[in-house]
Amino acid sequence: MSQAPELINEARCFGGWQRTYRHASTRCNSTMQFAVYLPPAADQARVPALYWLSGLTCTEENFSVKAGAQRYAAELGIALVIPDTSPRGLGLAGEDDDWDFGSGAGFYLTATEAPWAGHYDMYGYVAEELPALVEATLPLLPGVRSISGHSMGGHGALTIGLKHPERYRSISAFAPICAPMRCAWGRKAFSRYLGEDHARWREYDASWLAEHRPCGHTLLVDQGTADPWLAEQLLPEELERACAASGQPLELRRQLDYEHGYFFVASFIGEHLRFHQAALSEE
Amino acid sequence: MSQAPELINEARCFGGWQRTYRHASTRCNSTMQFAVYLPPAADQARVPALYWLSGLTCTEENFSVKAGAQRYAAELGIALVIPDTSPRGLGLAGEDDDWDFGSGAGFYLTATEAPWAGHYDMYGYVAEELPALVEATLPLLPGVRSISGHSMGGHGALTIGLKHPERYRSISAFAPICAPMRCAWGRKAFSRYLGEDHARWREYDASWLAEHRPCGHTLLVDQGTADPWLAEQLLPEELERACAASGQPLELRRQLDYEHGYFFVASFIGEHLRFHQAALSEE
Repeated sequence: MSQAPELINEARCFGGWQRTYRHASTRCNSTMQFAVYLPPAADQARVPALYWLSGLTCTEENFSVKAGAQRYAAELGIALVIPDTSPRGLGLAGEDDDWDFGSGAGFYLTATEAPWAGHYDMYGYVAEELPALVEATLPLLPGVRSISGHSMGGHGALTIGLKHPERYRSISAFAPICAPMRCAWGRKAFSRYLGEDHARWREYDASWLAEHRPCGHTLLVDQGTADPWLAEQLLPEELERACAASGQPLELRRQLDYEHGYFFVASFIGEHLRFHQAALSEE
Repeated sequence: MSQAPELINEARCFGGWQRTYRHASTRCNSTMQFAVYLPPAADQARVPALYWLSGLTCTEENFSVKAGAQRYAAELGIALVIPDTSPRGLGLAGEDDDWDFGSGAGFYLTATEAPWAGHYDMYGYVAEELPALVEATLPLLPGVRSISGHSMGGHGALTIGLKHPERYRSISAFAPICAPMRCAWGRKAFSRYLGEDHARWREYDASWLAEHRPCGHTLLVDQGTADPWLAEQLLPEELERACAASGQPLELRRQLDYEHGYFFVASFIGEHLRFHQAALSEE
């Protein structure tokens, strides 16, 4: 039985509740915060949940305040579960030195290298611990989940979704890091969290997984054409090539003139929520 | 002829453009920033505008990133014009000492007292300079304006709207400071910006104006019942009493369990935009 997380704050939002919780994470061996939006429908019955994974430097707050997702979640009767992007305040050497590594940059993997191993397990936290916790303590339908995310969180959503298609009804991403083994953000993070064994890296590379472990779910991916990280870090063409090679269904939409930030996410989050709702409402 | 403001940044949002501009304000005798959302319809023809006035501590960014208003503005073909809440960086004594006075707290009045006079003229800036500037340099319909705001900005929207009903088609507010002469925030700001002549204070008190200078527009006001500032600072019952005394039309909606922040604003901004659209689209 999971211990109920501590409610830090809550506010009414579109007839439901936007909340922040704190709890002791066993996977990260630290205190973690996450946000939840419960739609009005959760007052009456258990509801399905979309897990949202945020990008570099974000906490659970960014998506909660900037995406405008609650409006659609309220209409569709979907809860939003929004974890932080890393453990914080552990006092590890180098933890807060870089904006693209350490705090705010957990990369949704299980670190194997010192000093990160034993704390930086955002993979186990997101894929196992957090769903078990919220489904045991909040009015969520057990196992009825979808997953999405932005940038580093899009990488997280694609990799966790591809590895566990039975745990998620549908998978989407905004401007995801599609091939972290081939970009500077990914190589920096993987080498320090995982060491130099590239067989470990592949387990967290969406393009490698899409090519070698395709799943039945269509991946819905939006990417802005004016995104400054597009050519160097995000590499959607790698995902496109991998999916074509394996037959993995992919709907990659290049959105003309859109940038990388939450004005882009907000513009299309309604379409993503409807995409997930179609899968979440199947009997 | 107004000099075109300098474009600081822009991002695609719901098919339109979210932009930040900087310009030299004559009213504030300083550099000012403001944000604008141009809906897709502005690509084809001039569009009406809603002026949004923000609350204490805010800049032009808060509403732009937190309210989710662009979605509705895009659908309805309305531009959003979002000024900062004060001049900044002037080097005046005490300018940055308080969160509820000086920078971020211009209170939408024309200061008469030193050292604020000559710079803190957010009233003249919002009611005259900014509309003239944006209507001369952006694809906005001249004179087709509505006004709204939040908290201190709700006070600004109600007072500017009541004083100039011919300049605004419609007026609304979220959790406004309804009677600043009767609350600590208002008394502190008015005494320092305006001195102790209460005849001047009345010109910036929505309840006094509603009682003594009612206008034909209905005031749409939303107020959350769980707002922590409700009883001490906001005093909607004073506005209610004043409107009843004068016959000023008021639609005051007490929204059960809602708080003061942008989760509250976001929940009802769509209804406000539709309210303004009805007035803005009249021939």
